[in-house]
Amino acid sequence: MDLFMDQAPHELIDLRRELPVLGQCIYLNTGTAGPLPRCASDAIQGAAELERTQGRGDFRSFGAFLEVREAARSLVAQLLHAAPREIALTHHTSDGVNIVLWGLRWKPGDELVTTSLEHDAVAVPAGVLARRLGVQARFADIGLGDQALGAVAAALSPRTRLLVLSHVMYSTGAALPVAPIVKLAHEQGVQVLVDGAQSCGVVPVDVRELEVDYYTVSGQKWLCGPEGTGALYVRADRLGELEATFASYFSAAHHDFAGQVALHDDARRFESGMVYRPALHGFRASLAWMLESVGIARAAERSVALARAARAMLESIEGVTLRTPEACQAGLLSFDLPAFSPARLRALASRWAAERQLIVRSIDHRPYALRASFGFFNTEAEVAELTSAVRDAAQQGPSAVVPLAGHSPLPDHREG
Amino acid sequence: MDLFMDQAPHELIDLRRELPVLGQCIYLNTGTAGPLPRCASDAIQGAAELERTQGRGDFRSFGAFLEVREAARSLVAQLLHAAPREIALTHHTSDGVNIVLWGLRWKPGDELVTTSLEHDAVAVPAGVLARRLGVQARFADIGLGDQALGAVAAALSPRTRLLVLSHVMYSTGAALPVAPIVKLAHEQGVQVLVDGAQSCGVVPVDVRELEVDYYTVSGQKWLCGPEGTGALYVRADRLGELEATFASYFSAAHHDFAGQVALHDDARRFESGMVYRPALHGFRASLAWMLESVGIARAAERSVALARAARAMLESIEGVTLRTPEACQAGLLSFDLPAFSPARLRALASRWAAERQLIVRSIDHRPYALRASFGFFNTEAEVAELTSAVRDAAQQGPSAVVPLAGHSPLPDHREG
Repeated sequence: MDLFMDQAPHELIDLRRELPVLGQCIYLNTGTAGPLPRCASDAIQGAAELERTQGRGDFRSFGAFLEVREAARSLVAQLLHAAPREIALTHHTSDGVNIVLWGLRWKPGDELVTTSLEHDAVAVPAGVLARRLGVQARFADIGLGDQALGAVAAALSPRTRLLVLSHVMYSTGAALPVAPIVKLAHEQGVQVLVDGAQSCGVVPVDVRELEVDYYTVSGQKWLCGPEGTGALYVRADRLGELEATFASYFSAAHHDFAGQVALHDDARRFESGMVYRPALHGFRASLAWMLESVGIARAAERSVALARAARAMLESIEGVTLRTPEACQAGLLSFDLPAFSPARLRALASRWAAERQLIVRSIDHRPYALRASFGFFNTEAEVAELTSAVRDAAQQGPSAVVPLAGHSPLPDHREG
Repeated sequence: MDLFMDQAPHELIDLRRELPVLGQCIYLNTGTAGPLPRCASDAIQGAAELERTQGRGDFRSFGAFLEVREAARSLVAQLLHAAPREIALTHHTSDGVNIVLWGLRWKPGDELVTTSLEHDAVAVPAGVLARRLGVQARFADIGLGDQALGAVAAALSPRTRLLVLSHVMYSTGAALPVAPIVKLAHEQGVQVLVDGAQSCGVVPVDVRELEVDYYTVSGQKWLCGPEGTGALYVRADRLGELEATFASYFSAAHHDFAGQVALHDDARRFESGMVYRPALHGFRASLAWMLESVGIARAAERSVALARAARAMLESIEGVTLRTPEACQAGLLSFDLPAFSPARLRALASRWAAERQLIVRSIDHRPYALRASFGFFNTEAEVAELTSAVRDAAQQGPSAVVPLAGHSPLPDHREG
């Protein structure tokens, strides 16, 4: 199982040394934000120090920034097997989703199909767009994620213009069969936007093979980059038809100060204003590290193996229900303790953080769950620690979970 | 003239010590990005160090981030004399402009009026919106900025819905009479968005007195904050009518994963995804420093005094033409050497940076100019250094400006 150990006994240890947070806690929340490698924090700190002492106002520093942009763009292209001109740098996946949603030429009565398990980054903009433009947003009920193909097929109609769905569902951890879903949608003339927040860096993604139209990238999760960084892939043949909405100086090739604007003919047209430059240096460093020192295929294989090991151990504990469909495993594993109210599940996560230095996330809505993220850098011993914590909680029951000081009392009911 | 020296002999020296870049060069480009105070870089570095070693995935760190958001929002409200609920945190002024432009309910044939001197952050989105929505964008010719009131009055029509203009023009440095312009627009039922990139931190802004509808804030210029930070003021009575466009989890009070979305009823509805958290810590620190240790009114008074001193000295040099209208002085001073081609003006700025450690910006389009920014922290000696550099250039003439190694040869014509 241990891919790194097989190849070089100390390689995993060396890679873990590059991730300082791993020395502080059992870090199982890469699905929120990954551990930052030293190379990224060094790049951020170096750029920040230059800004502090050399300033940010001369041409040379701006030229260096433009170079970092292009370097990051190329690495994202490499990650996705795309061309650099198909990559727009964004602040986050929400940007990517909004760029695509607002970039289509909707007519009232058109339909947008998405799923019942989408993150706020999809569910909120879909709802806002639908109300403003008179578009019908349909939310296909995909269960825990294992019924996606059939549910999406049933939801598509001749009025559907766009299908938006996550590659890996943030709440249940289910990895969706994107290629057949895209094929199905395309057969009906429907474009597809995939939210890659929980896949990029932990699932090998080849946008050519998937034939997807649009794909978002989050810098801060499985790619171990800084927050406030991300990207959007726009397939070359969509560049001419997807309209720019939020635009600014990075979008334009030139303009005449009197209304004539020529936008870039590549994905830069979807980029707008300035970012915190050191964060982009960090994003580049993380991308290079993941691609060159770690390797996405290897990282993916190890994440799935660790998640499966955790599944096998948690399954044997009475009072624990797995939420991640077995056939759809990626880096996230969600599980429930049905005897616990949502408030007690949440408090359990807080207690584990405070008392066991064990960091997981609680999913505070249906399907209520605790969610553990397994990165390539996690260990079998950390899986065992999680198992041990879950076993203790299941044995002691919900009444043993008292709120942390200053927190509200814990209700014992489940909504809905 | 020296406000700081008058009150406490060492106060300016102490404040300059907080700005390390001032020890490296003659920094006259705050209009691009200000010097970062130590308190801001310390806040960034402290937050970055916590991220590196403690991770970004537990609830406590996220709670701290939400507190920083609200602290920054309150400080921006204080800066503008607004209420916190009228302030949306943005990535930059381009965000603020796009939020307002795309948030109005335009009908084809409606008009947007702006000016001939706007930054790309206004000119590009105005052009994009006009083309996509069938809106007419009109660019009032305001000369160097001293003809704004009359030109805007002439451009408004019964079809005008929105007027967008900068408080201080980035190219000519002209400060516009915003209050009478807003009054004029409101009398005709036209809403007003002011781009505050070159005013916030160097012009005292009271949005109540100005009665403006929308006002953007750039973190990284005269407020001396990090890049990638900013804000948008939306007047309370516009909150209900301005629609959210790009939206995500920060926009919503709650949603049901099936299309029902309740957005916040305050300006948070215009906020979308994650930022690089340490940069927001830096923004808060810079805002607090500018408001509490420096003082905006005092900073403004000193900037204008320094710019006027520079004007008086440059006016006496043969071959120099001032571009900033005398009656419209804020922190920027633009001047031209008409004997120099635009390429040689640009090369002159590069040469000064490399050889004199003197940082100004060249304006590489009409009206071609060099632009010096005077912050409260600049000194009379720095004004004299600029004057000396300009005098040398004027005396030696354009042929003495050779391109830096690796740069292209310099054409000698002026466009248009």
